[in-house]
Amino acid sequence: MTRMLIIGGSDAGISAALRMRELDAAVEITIVLADRFPNYSICGLPFFLSGEVTDWQHLAHRKAEDITSLGIQLLMNHWAESIDPMQKTVTVKAPDGATKFMGYDKLILGTGGTSVNPPIQGLDLPGVYPLRWMADSFAVQQHLTDRSPQHAVIIGAGYIGLEMADALTLRGLSVTLIQRSSSILKTIDPTLSQLVADELTKHGVEVVTDVDIDRIESIDKRLLVADSMGFQRVTDLVIVAVGVSPATQLAQTAGVSLSVNSAIQVNRSMETNLPDIYAAGDCVETYHRILGRNIYLPLGTTAHKQGRVAGENALGGHRKFQGSLGTQVVKIFEVAAARTGLRDDEAIAAGLRPLTVETDVWHHKAYYPGAHSLRIRVTGDRTSGRLLGAQIAGHYQGEVAKRIDIFATALFHDMKMDELNDLDLSYTPPLGSPWDAVQMAAQAWTKQCSEQAL
Amino acid sequence: MTRMLIIGGSDAGISAALRMRELDAAVEITIVLADRFPNYSICGLPFFLSGEVTDWQHLAHRKAEDITSLGIQLLMNHWAESIDPMQKTVTVKAPDGATKFMGYDKLILGTGGTSVNPPIQGLDLPGVYPLRWMADSFAVQQHLTDRSPQHAVIIGAGYIGLEMADALTLRGLSVTLIQRSSSILKTIDPTLSQLVADELTKHGVEVVTDVDIDRIESIDKRLLVADSMGFQRVTDLVIVAVGVSPATQLAQTAGVSLSVNSAIQVNRSMETNLPDIYAAGDCVETYHRILGRNIYLPLGTTAHKQGRVAGENALGGHRKFQGSLGTQVVKIFEVAAARTGLRDDEAIAAGLRPLTVETDVWHHKAYYPGAHSLRIRVTGDRTSGRLLGAQIAGHYQGEVAKRIDIFATALFHDMKMDELNDLDLSYTPPLGSPWDAVQMAAQAWTKQCSEQAL
Repeated sequence: MTRMLIIGGSDAGISAALRMRELDAAVEITIVLADRFPNYSICGLPFFLSGEVTDWQHLAHRKAEDITSLGIQLLMNHWAESIDPMQKTVTVKAPDGATKFMGYDKLILGTGGTSVNPPIQGLDLPGVYPLRWMADSFAVQQHLTDRSPQHAVIIGAGYIGLEMADALTLRGLSVTLIQRSSSILKTIDPTLSQLVADELTKHGVEVVTDVDIDRIESIDKRLLVADSMGFQRVTDLVIVAVGVSPATQLAQTAGVSLSVNSAIQVNRSMETNLPDIYAAGDCVETYHRILGRNIYLPLGTTAHKQGRVAGENALGGHRKFQGSLGTQVVKIFEVAAARTGLRDDEAIAAGLRPLTVETDVWHHKAYYPGAHSLRIRVTGDRTSGRLLGAQIAGHYQGEVAKRIDIFATALFHDMKMDELNDLDLSYTPPLGSPWDAVQMAAQAWTKQCSEQAL
Repeated sequence: MTRMLIIGGSDAGISAALRMRELDAAVEITIVLADRFPNYSICGLPFFLSGEVTDWQHLAHRKAEDITSLGIQLLMNHWAESIDPMQKTVTVKAPDGATKFMGYDKLILGTGGTSVNPPIQGLDLPGVYPLRWMADSFAVQQHLTDRSPQHAVIIGAGYIGLEMADALTLRGLSVTLIQRSSSILKTIDPTLSQLVADELTKHGVEVVTDVDIDRIESIDKRLLVADSMGFQRVTDLVIVAVGVSPATQLAQTAGVSLSVNSAIQVNRSMETNLPDIYAAGDCVETYHRILGRNIYLPLGTTAHKQGRVAGENALGGHRKFQGSLGTQVVKIFEVAAARTGLRDDEAIAAGLRPLTVETDVWHHKAYYPGAHSLRIRVTGDRTSGRLLGAQIAGHYQGEVAKRIDIFATALFHDMKMDELNDLDLSYTPPLGSPWDAVQMAAQAWTKQCSEQAL
């Protein structure tokens, strides 16, 4: 019987397993995972720590039993130590310390990413935590419960950092959020990320930019967080969330080629350079649909898609990963900020001639009560008129997330900005406008583009 | 100087005028409109009558001054009596009764639609109103203000009827909503429209189906609404909203050909059969993108698009109307119901082999508080696997409207159901799922389709 072995029990690995089981009732599927939390929503950790999710077990997309009941074997708390691609075996250490040699016909690597450790002294002090795995969140939770901290410092103002600022504020802590660069949420242009910064400030978060923390020290029972320029905060808890890097040691040692950002090199079939070894998720490089090349862009949505493709192809399928657009959204308090595709600087770097136009527009007819203002930036190519990307920020009930998805779907199909007017989008005064906000933003772009061409 | 004459000052006519001015600063543009309310949001009337829109003037998409300041002449309260297509003149009656002969180089007809008068005795009684134009809404408003009605009967459970049931309930009236057929909101399949019916009932509206009203009688100072089978309600106000038919008398008399549903026949350039006469909006037949033929499908969004195309082409452009998908949404109390594309019966009538699959799915990760259940029906072709249409009903804050727009954008591009999984849609636990609700619905369809094929 064909033996499918998957290393990693998060989004990519589980998606691969489910897809294989969907297509083949008989194939033998085993997942080796390093902890005991298969298919947990890593993206949900801040909402557990905020108290909004009362039971951490609810963070599971599926229970372990749901997975094993499909005839998928889960080896929890097992650590894959090495791969022998010639013999097609993986050496696995069981929780009791015993070593197993597991044979495979096809191997799928979904080893994920790890938190980046920035060059800061004192990261190993008690009270300083990364936030990536369930174990991290239990450690933070215990700190919150046992120590009743009054103040927290969060280093890094990306998605996890921002969500933790929201979460810990909800939990009753005072929060200082520190970002090395001049604006938070670097994945969004500053005029939009400023709306998120304003929302944080409105809720009492101290937002500090242009500060490069270089040390954390223990002072009495508290922690001192400092840079070399005189910035200092004394706090009770530090969360370090400055990014993710691919977890590739296992792969690399086995001779799997790495590429962009030291992520595993894959083609659009999710094949590595070694026969019968596939890889997917945060450990691999990702094909970007607009750029037409691979970059490192780890996202849960992408991990699901890539895992599904890897699973199908491991069974002999011919599915191609259709590419990421980098579509993403974050909600901080009442504000959502979202993007898809390229921004100006990224488009320029790709040799395009972008124009980005910003429009403020109501999410539904202004005459109907409760209209939220959306700030939309659309980026298009001056030469071809092609849509390249979009960003939206505004109240989350302004359907920010699904409006970015309209742009993402248009972008997937390579639409020109002007063609967005042809889309037959829904309208009723309490939920939109005869030209939807996304079309009004596109119209503003077209107008400005033609005016500049004159 | 080229003279552009537009008859009708609602969505289609104004869009045509604005597009022409955008493209040509010099061309002479005149709009003849029968009332004094150019560019009013007819769709907004229920929200004025509910009291949510406090000033009727806010219903204007643009003020008259905004239009005239662009050098567009507005002849308000002018009635176009006849067209001489040979001489290229229109006979117009001014408010003082004087008749003008207006020459044109290009004529655009945007005469709109009129309320259908069903075969009911007593439609002309005081207290019985259609709801189509501003004047209708003023009459209803005056009735509400002067007579303080306690109870209203609404005949017809389409969009306007449903919105008026919501509006008059908000206004404090008891409402009976009467529909001739067995379910309300015939544009949506019954399992979804039932969610809307439940929402109405929950808010105290009496929803009556399978009752074909044939007479309204005056009884003392009240009105009796009755059918021939013994159904009777005594009420203080009757709104009749059973549909729209194209207003085409002017066009027909001039020799303009009519077609589907007696709407003006147009091609995708929005040209009529007569030279230099264009038409757009509720008075014309509409090209349906999936059916590939013209049907009568009057919608404000379509009127805007068609008007824009007509305006551009009247100036010598070569724009084609890209077709309607029939995308629409309505919000009743807290529930939104939306659709795009074809339903099962419509697809069968078009010679396709549809399968429709219904899925109930959370609008965001269920572990995060506040998840709304969405009921999604997707229709696809069994033979080609192509997406044909989708319907969604659920809490309006479940981003129902913009989720139907994701389907609409996919449909515009002729996607197969399976390809929806390739779309890179946004995700964060408070706003979605790694596979968005629209993708989960598509996956359920693909699964059921392949199971049935076995």
